[in-house]
Amino acid sequence: MKLDNLTPIEWKFSERAEQLQSSMIREILKITQRPEVISFAGGLPSPETFPVERMRAAFDKVLSTSGKSALQYGPTDGYAPLREFIANSLSTNGAKISPDQVLMVSGSQQGLDLLGKVLLDEGSKALVETPSYLGALQAFSVYRPEFVSVEMDEHGLLPSAVAAKGEGARLLYSLPNFQNPTGLTLSTERRIELVETCARMRIPLLEDDPYGALCYRGEPLPKMLNMNPDGVIYMGSFSKVLTPGIRLGYVVAPHKLIRKLEQAKQAADLHTAQLTQMVVYEVIKDGFLDEHIPTIRTFYSGQCDIMLDALSKHFPAGVTWTKPDGGMFIWVKLPQHIDSMALSTEAIAQNVAFVPGVPFYAGVPETNTLRLSFVTVSPERIYEGIEKLGKLIASKLSK
Amino acid sequence: MKLDNLTPIEWKFSERAEQLQSSMIREILKITQRPEVISFAGGLPSPETFPVERMRAAFDKVLSTSGKSALQYGPTDGYAPLREFIANSLSTNGAKISPDQVLMVSGSQQGLDLLGKVLLDEGSKALVETPSYLGALQAFSVYRPEFVSVEMDEHGLLPSAVAAKGEGARLLYSLPNFQNPTGLTLSTERRIELVETCARMRIPLLEDDPYGALCYRGEPLPKMLNMNPDGVIYMGSFSKVLTPGIRLGYVVAPHKLIRKLEQAKQAADLHTAQLTQMVVYEVIKDGFLDEHIPTIRTFYSGQCDIMLDALSKHFPAGVTWTKPDGGMFIWVKLPQHIDSMALSTEAIAQNVAFVPGVPFYAGVPETNTLRLSFVTVSPERIYEGIEKLGKLIASKLSK
Repeated sequence: MKLDNLTPIEWKFSERAEQLQSSMIREILKITQRPEVISFAGGLPSPETFPVERMRAAFDKVLSTSGKSALQYGPTDGYAPLREFIANSLSTNGAKISPDQVLMVSGSQQGLDLLGKVLLDEGSKALVETPSYLGALQAFSVYRPEFVSVEMDEHGLLPSAVAAKGEGARLLYSLPNFQNPTGLTLSTERRIELVETCARMRIPLLEDDPYGALCYRGEPLPKMLNMNPDGVIYMGSFSKVLTPGIRLGYVVAPHKLIRKLEQAKQAADLHTAQLTQMVVYEVIKDGFLDEHIPTIRTFYSGQCDIMLDALSKHFPAGVTWTKPDGGMFIWVKLPQHIDSMALSTEAIAQNVAFVPGVPFYAGVPETNTLRLSFVTVSPERIYEGIEKLGKLIASKLSK
Repeated sequence: MKLDNLTPIEWKFSERAEQLQSSMIREILKITQRPEVISFAGGLPSPETFPVERMRAAFDKVLSTSGKSALQYGPTDGYAPLREFIANSLSTNGAKISPDQVLMVSGSQQGLDLLGKVLLDEGSKALVETPSYLGALQAFSVYRPEFVSVEMDEHGLLPSAVAAKGEGARLLYSLPNFQNPTGLTLSTERRIELVETCARMRIPLLEDDPYGALCYRGEPLPKMLNMNPDGVIYMGSFSKVLTPGIRLGYVVAPHKLIRKLEQAKQAADLHTAQLTQMVVYEVIKDGFLDEHIPTIRTFYSGQCDIMLDALSKHFPAGVTWTKPDGGMFIWVKLPQHIDSMALSTEAIAQNVAFVPGVPFYAGVPETNTLRLSFVTVSPERIYEGIEKLGKLIASKLSK
């Protein structure tokens, strides 16, 4: 019974919605789903690392033994045994994290959204790395802060730049381990200096750590959370060590903040699926990650070495790139005059994809940068794709 | 390596976060989890209705046959076959809904949050029913609108009141079927008038329909979505017809709005778990809901009749209540001088719980109202709890 002659609506969006845009990565990913495309553009972990059978068995067990409670509404803060497991695993180096400080979220991205919601007013100063994780910029930008872009060098974020620019900031967002997009790691000395600087300036320090477990060289560096559990907000995720599609992450923060985040989560989606949390707990409770993560490390580390080898073979002089100690990404810097956006279009025409650097900058972008992911493409196709890309870049140099 | 002598942080929350509060219902639910409490306070569906074994088999099948893709990141708009199923099921009465108009969300609550985010600026006029669903008030209040409370009578929302108060409103939120908290249904005549009024005044009309399938008497009334698919935003959920803990709902809206909501969802949590969507599709694709929903209806309808009988036996004269045609709730109006908040404290002391009416009002509350849920308590305990409550109310009358 459709009614006739109704006035068509003209949608008026909120100011925050007017400036929302779809992520460039998601747009590129749509283009690159054709199988002939060699895509270094994805931020996806390799499905080869997913413990599918173990997950299947855990779903079966939880639903067979606790089906009704697993499928009922659950508490907003999350499944208590899983929160306790996480708190214990983070209570290292003498720091004690309480389960009450852990809020389960529907993937780290939701943690970013909730933190933006709770900490940022319109015009609030938000410090971010240069470049920074695109998803964090997207999540925070909804709350319309004034982004202040803080310089990095090869050892990560510069604490002195935080000190110079950070006065009155409502948060500093840092991804210290194998950063997305650069693959860079913040050194231990810098971590200490950063924690001290933020404490002195009373800036909430957000330590986003989705890749921390994927360490290929040397020892994992100490968490800033453990240096100052009363001032650091830590975010973790099961996306890179189990599977991303289940959407499960967590935020660890001091009590006063975590209770506020819990209220915000209640208004945002009540709670994260109890079943998912029970299944993940079932999968990891007896130490599975201790045997599983090393297999991911070995696999990704090999992939990383292959891409580094391909880059040194096929990329022309004048191009530089990072040599990550872990994670999923390599960051490439082209000669100044090459625009990676234009290059991306030409590369896609040759069935090779990457993400141009521009969307990772909150401030003035370096248009000659790009991000490569090395985890999902086979060795042969890594060599093939990097060779094509190298030739394309070389053709720009000779002009 | 905890660092010493760090300045403790003083958290400064955003203005929107300062006014966030935990839901009174969640607080009452914490108190009433003791088994000796007869709780009419919950908004939970009965776990007796969960098709646990069928869900278990579907998880098993999806993970056995498509494990890797089910556990990988997925598209923000959702799993295409499920979106198509939903679009088809809503294409009734001559209206055609396209799968492109369907956005899967992590429970209806997330739909409310995204709609608030995309449609409401600070101070925007948001029209809500009197009383209205508490979770919607919570979700919208984050975006700090000016709530305008629109009167209802026993046939639901008054379109004339919308016309009188709605000028310039950014949305009208309505729960037309077996409303939470009142159990009232918006009549067909009113629906037509409301759709016409909103179209004329260019007010986006949000039709929230979590309980629509739970119809115990008469025929389901036509959806406002089908009356004006170009101006009505429809929200549905699997919480009441399958299970709530999986957190799966959907928003149906015209293209321009749904694309904006998709961008907001991408920033909020990237996407809803692909596995969950594939499992739900597996469970419902061959018509399971057509056989399952009638069993829920029979069960809840019996529970409803028992509570109505208990009320008529045990509640004193001067107390009135709604006789819902479906859903989960009965709304009680006490004599003016009885404060249901104070009554709640006394009732809990006698191990009976309900939700006082106050938190359901965006404007001036009626302090003599309360909500009863009839779905999770056994018949004997319904009679026992209502008798206790009736005596308690009677004791207030004689004073």
